[in-house]
Amino acid sequence: MRVEALCSKCGKNPVFFCRRYSGEKLCKRCFTRSIEKKVVDTIGKYSMFSYDDRIAVALSGGKDSLTLLHILEKIERRFPRAKLFAITIDEGISGYRDEAIKLAQKQTSKLGIEHIVISFKEIYGHEIDELAEKAKQHNLSPCSICGVLRRTALNIAARKYGATKLATAHNLDDEVQTILINLIRSDVYRLYRLGPVLRGENFVPRVKPLCKIPEDEVALYAYLTGIEFQSVACPYSPYTIRSLVRNFLNELEHKYPGSKFAIYRTIEKVKPSLSIEKNLKFCKNCGEVSTSEMCRTCDIIVKLTGDRWNQGSIWRDPRPSLP
Amino acid sequence: MRVEALCSKCGKNPVFFCRRYSGEKLCKRCFTRSIEKKVVDTIGKYSMFSYDDRIAVALSGGKDSLTLLHILEKIERRFPRAKLFAITIDEGISGYRDEAIKLAQKQTSKLGIEHIVISFKEIYGHEIDELAEKAKQHNLSPCSICGVLRRTALNIAARKYGATKLATAHNLDDEVQTILINLIRSDVYRLYRLGPVLRGENFVPRVKPLCKIPEDEVALYAYLTGIEFQSVACPYSPYTIRSLVRNFLNELEHKYPGSKFAIYRTIEKVKPSLSIEKNLKFCKNCGEVSTSEMCRTCDIIVKLTGDRWNQGSIWRDPRPSLP
Repeated sequence: MRVEALCSKCGKNPVFFCRRYSGEKLCKRCFTRSIEKKVVDTIGKYSMFSYDDRIAVALSGGKDSLTLLHILEKIERRFPRAKLFAITIDEGISGYRDEAIKLAQKQTSKLGIEHIVISFKEIYGHEIDELAEKAKQHNLSPCSICGVLRRTALNIAARKYGATKLATAHNLDDEVQTILINLIRSDVYRLYRLGPVLRGENFVPRVKPLCKIPEDEVALYAYLTGIEFQSVACPYSPYTIRSLVRNFLNELEHKYPGSKFAIYRTIEKVKPSLSIEKNLKFCKNCGEVSTSEMCRTCDIIVKLTGDRWNQGSIWRDPRPSLP
Repeated sequence: MRVEALCSKCGKNPVFFCRRYSGEKLCKRCFTRSIEKKVVDTIGKYSMFSYDDRIAVALSGGKDSLTLLHILEKIERRFPRAKLFAITIDEGISGYRDEAIKLAQKQTSKLGIEHIVISFKEIYGHEIDELAEKAKQHNLSPCSICGVLRRTALNIAARKYGATKLATAHNLDDEVQTILINLIRSDVYRLYRLGPVLRGENFVPRVKPLCKIPEDEVALYAYLTGIEFQSVACPYSPYTIRSLVRNFLNELEHKYPGSKFAIYRTIEKVKPSLSIEKNLKFCKNCGEVSTSEMCRTCDIIVKLTGDRWNQGSIWRDPRPSLP
């Protein structure tokens, strides 16, 4: 007679998932609960939210951001004075972003959460497909410019709609990949700025409640809770150093479970003793705080399009209240 | 008519090697000279040697250590008050180390350099083959114990023969691999101690004159200068995290030339701002300085063999003069 192994947490249900780095064997219910608990713990540990925050969730329509929205909505029910809304940036990637936006809309309307969609076209006057084409001539990767422009766009939208926090769905894998990429690029400043919470001048504080959840567990959570997400990868993604780093980290984690957490811990240990001072300036184009003469966003737009784009005209508008 | 490309340094000889990370295209002569110059520069930059140092070279018989000996012998001719000698540790890896020792003997006698061979058997009473077998039962990898025991053995021998510096042949690849491994293991203390020069209590200061030379360039130098070296890899080497990290770094360097140097630079940038204090203690077994109750060497020997081994009895002997 075959004896089915039982969940190491509840001792009742059959095992569905083995967490190799911790040795836990969990049933479906205990698995999803453990993810939610970990997010609550992460929020608490890093004091991510106040009881009355206006939280903007950066919602791409992928598994990570939809999962984040799903979990935050559950948590925030207990905080009636907090406000949750979602922002989707439409970069203009033809045949890719449209489906994601539909899924994001479906999920937000199901949860009764306000949803703002704002496009690169509206903000920058150009879509990413067009900018990516021009980027090639400047030896820039589409992903590097898209990342910068998306971050600025999210900030502009969060600011405009009165958010006091901007929650992004970076998971453990994203964070550890970024650690390695910054190490490889010798970018100590970005290594230093990386972390669960980022505060600074002239941007809405950013928090990452999923930063301790491995990517495969986010995907599993989305699957188990019936979240419909876009599974197609962005057509630009194969061209990056990130995919090389991702493959290495996955192989490493497979052979040495717990490695991703260990890398994350190393940087957490090192950060407090790092004393990095970067001379902050004002971007000569838009006037925003920058580490160089021109901020990276303006630099990209001006370089690629020749436009005299100025983000100041958008985000210095009087802040409207939430829709 | 086909025009042969000429060396970008001398402009005379045909190109033999393209250094992708710097764009240099070098002839054979300029290549070997560039390696020697880089070693001289590294020694100078980090003040590795004094004019009257007694330098022990850790000579395994592989390409790196034979190259180091070859270059140091050339450099030290200009410093008649300095003394160079070689130490080979015979770990007792059957069918592997014997050939390396012969090659080491051949090279040292060709260069007229004194050569000391000392075995694990003499120092610890056990060969690595025997210890590796026992290590398995304790879930320890052969390479991790061998590394610790070899380092202690080298120090014992260097001390015994009056060395004021111990030069090891770690190349850029070794160093960058170790950076990643320490990051993966969350070992900030070792990350902090890593570098071209290591000084500390109770050990002969260690220097790494090849730390800025990529492994493939060391191999090419050895080949061009006719150094006969052991090309067979250690039979234990495939079982380590190092090979996984090595493959990743090689792929990375291939796609993004200069990445290895960049990683090395990141740690050089980060180190000065790190303030790591480790509580140093005295090993309760041998009395040497240690970061825990028992030093790692004693811990391994005692755990694996049950012997009451005590390195103090060996290295506290009055130091004999050089043979």
